[in-house]
Amino acid sequence: MKQRLFTPGPTPLPEEVRLAQAREIIHHRSEGFAKVFQEVRQGLKYVFQTKEEVLLLTASGTGAMEAVVANLFSSGDRVLVVRGGKFGERWGEIAAAFGLEVVSLDIEWGSAVSPDLIREKIVKDSGIKAVFTQLVETSTGAVYDIEAIAKIVKPTEAVLIVDAISGLGAEPLLTDGWGVDVVVGGSQKALMLPPGLAFASLSPKAWRLIENSDIPRYYWDFKKAKKAQEKNQTPYTPAVSLICALRESLRLLREEGWENILARHAKLAEATRKAVLALGLKIFSKVPSNVLTAIEIPSGIDGEKLRKIMRDGYGVEVAGGQAELAGKIIRIAHLGWMDASDMIVVLSSLEMGLSELGYPVKLGKGLASAEEILGR
Amino acid sequence: MKQRLFTPGPTPLPEEVRLAQAREIIHHRSEGFAKVFQEVRQGLKYVFQTKEEVLLLTASGTGAMEAVVANLFSSGDRVLVVRGGKFGERWGEIAAAFGLEVVSLDIEWGSAVSPDLIREKIVKDSGIKAVFTQLVETSTGAVYDIEAIAKIVKPTEAVLIVDAISGLGAEPLLTDGWGVDVVVGGSQKALMLPPGLAFASLSPKAWRLIENSDIPRYYWDFKKAKKAQEKNQTPYTPAVSLICALRESLRLLREEGWENILARHAKLAEATRKAVLALGLKIFSKVPSNVLTAIEIPSGIDGEKLRKIMRDGYGVEVAGGQAELAGKIIRIAHLGWMDASDMIVVLSSLEMGLSELGYPVKLGKGLASAEEILGR
Repeated sequence: MKQRLFTPGPTPLPEEVRLAQAREIIHHRSEGFAKVFQEVRQGLKYVFQTKEEVLLLTASGTGAMEAVVANLFSSGDRVLVVRGGKFGERWGEIAAAFGLEVVSLDIEWGSAVSPDLIREKIVKDSGIKAVFTQLVETSTGAVYDIEAIAKIVKPTEAVLIVDAISGLGAEPLLTDGWGVDVVVGGSQKALMLPPGLAFASLSPKAWRLIENSDIPRYYWDFKKAKKAQEKNQTPYTPAVSLICALRESLRLLREEGWENILARHAKLAEATRKAVLALGLKIFSKVPSNVLTAIEIPSGIDGEKLRKIMRDGYGVEVAGGQAELAGKIIRIAHLGWMDASDMIVVLSSLEMGLSELGYPVKLGKGLASAEEILGR
Repeated sequence: MKQRLFTPGPTPLPEEVRLAQAREIIHHRSEGFAKVFQEVRQGLKYVFQTKEEVLLLTASGTGAMEAVVANLFSSGDRVLVVRGGKFGERWGEIAAAFGLEVVSLDIEWGSAVSPDLIREKIVKDSGIKAVFTQLVETSTGAVYDIEAIAKIVKPTEAVLIVDAISGLGAEPLLTDGWGVDVVVGGSQKALMLPPGLAFASLSPKAWRLIENSDIPRYYWDFKKAKKAQEKNQTPYTPAVSLICALRESLRLLREEGWENILARHAKLAEATRKAVLALGLKIFSKVPSNVLTAIEIPSGIDGEKLRKIMRDGYGVEVAGGQAELAGKIIRIAHLGWMDASDMIVVLSSLEMGLSELGYPVKLGKGLASAEEILGR
């Protein structure tokens, strides 16, 4: 059966990206690799919307999150962590693992964090050295207002650290323009690559923090990484085949253009939301992102059975809920290398799956709503 | 020009491995991935010659080295580090970065570490918690007698930690049979994969150390990795395309058979050494490994020029010397997906390169010596 991925990472791969991995391997200290890497460095700056160096790590996104904590802070530092889902909790777990004093800002899962709440916390407590948050909380589908948060954090001593692993390339994020100090990205999302590479950009304010950090690190050392990258190298043997594939995906992204990519994601997301509502379903998040749409499973319907029908009946893989949301939501990603026809496919399998489970769905009704948005 | 890699990582890739990366990506929480991963786990146990779980990390080999230090030790622990080249030094650097007290056992670069010296050190100082060494010191081409070292370390409280990143699959290493507590491996060597995956196997003695370690870790957490792997998962999104390629390479390795692989490496290495000596050159290491042959550049010859001729004239990429050996040696790897004809190619380009630089070489003399070994 044809398989189609609608998960918020990994996402489908363009042919150019898939095939680039299959080429003969090149040596990471060769001129050929340096040329690839130079192009990749430029492309990453474009994607991150920054003129600063974007550090590339051979690791999962969580590795880059850990690297940020290990490079910028010292044991005992107090930091504010927005926790509105599984990935907010992850920031808290990593910070705590490295001995930071975590002040949690817990918000209802699926809701947006209020910038005013952040202001209140950091005004009240000038000892807070950083605000950790997400651009998109992948576990709930919520998007946070990073621009507003950046306005609050910028004039303070604190740095703003944004996990944009799933959001980058699907939601606007002006790293330099808004003044976001640290942006973390991953390869297997809007960058249309397999997992295995992670990224971090740092503002001059963030770089200054590194000077005083006392957490042990070696593989994650940002200063060493930056120094090597400026010579179009990496400190250790990197994932060469993924970096060659990254060059291809960055070419595709530049060809399409950043504004167009964001507009495409916005359109696919809107079509999905309209279709879901037309089917009488509820969207879980109060602030749904353009990365993925989390849909509440109607009472009486078994969410895991629905996913199974979509997968085994139609080859359509969507994500379930994580942690406390397991069984309560399904998550449809419209992320990365996706177009209108892809969304028709996933929404159709949703309609047919719900119908098979006895949910009163008028076949085609969601699709009709989607087409109203997707039509040229 | 056709390009051929004779570097000690990355090494050439079999077609099956290259093409496996180009397949459609699969989701890391799917049944399909679990099947791949189950097979990979079995294959890794075969390659590592252990019945223990071999942990897979999305990282460079250095990442796995760091992970070992971060999981097994506490700040202030005293450890013995064999330093006979750049990678021995790296163990020392990582251990020091994490606050360990490093007792260095410095040996002449290119020589073997004497097991008796290790015995002396750990008998004299029962506070030493670990012995860090290499199987093959890639910077010099030397192979160490791990079997003898294991016999010394095993009855003590200390654990033996072996960086086998370049050696695994080219030199004998009986992890369980010899009692090696920790073996670290990397993907881009005899495993015939691109870089991006690293591995670590741990003995029960090593696992016990983890209980008392106080170094902060999250991404590197071995206990979490083991727990996930036993369910055919990884704690974080792993490098899926590389893992699918790893399944292919492990299949190829099992098909050839471990003894045959080691015998092939031994034969290619012997042919290389014979050829080098026949040309009147000197082998740098006193204990040359089957991974690579480090050749001393004769006085009057510019080593970097020689490499350039081999690369630009014949498409043959060999490695130069690292750190203090830069310009003084070239290193020819006979590692991974290599056969007799490959060695003829690299040795021929060596002869022609030396000749072009005015070194008195009798063309074909090295090749003749190699053929004596390589002939069926």
